Amino acid sequence: MAFGYVGSMRARPGHRAEVVAILLEAADQIASAGCSLYVVGVSETDPDLIVVSEIWQSREHHAASLRLPETRAAIERAMPMLTGEFTGQELSLVGGLGVPATLS
Amino acid sequence: MAFGYVGSMRARPGHRAEVVAILLEAADQIASAGCSLYVVGVSETDPDLIVVSEIWQSREHHAASLRLPETRAAIERAMPMLTGEFTGQELSLVGGLGVPATLS
Repeated sequence: MAFGYVGSMRARPGHRAEVVAILLEAADQIASAGCSLYVVGVSETDPDLIVVSEIWQSREHHAASLRLPETRAAIERAMPMLTGEFTGQELSLVGGLGVPATLS
Repeated sequence: MAFGYVGSMRARPGHRAEVVAILLEAADQIASAGCSLYVVGVSETDPDLIVVSEIWQSREHHAASLRLPETRAAIERAMPMLTGEFTGQELSLVGGLGVPATLS
């Protein structure tokens, strides 16, 4: 079953745009790693909050992507700009509207 | 800017599948209301948790959808099967991979 992940992270004040830029660069690289959706959003009322919603072919694809050198390099660049406050929710996807075809 | 919403809800024990079915029925109806993505996921480790990630043309489209008779009917059907524990995060979408074309 397709794997979903919804995660949030908190940037240090003034650094959210830089972190978002790193996340968007990463988005270009992960399609080939089994990611079919990677949506980056920011809160308008909480100026440091970033939320990412992801769909992967499987939990294993997601886990393997975190070990890729380019992913590790991106994480290393972003970490000093983050407070360390993360949330994450792993999900089994059951369907919906506009879900990429790789899900079915 | 496109509007994102990530929300969670908790079903009463034994009722998650029924709530998911109601959410998936709703997914068929909301494309015409300005929704381009509506992904329903469930936790494998928390048997009552449901998470929905949504992309709308605008915050106003999302708000208007909640006033539609079919949405209100679906909410009314689901509510008795929910504990009342909700979370929700409104987002401005900044980009990513696999994001529906209506975003750009």
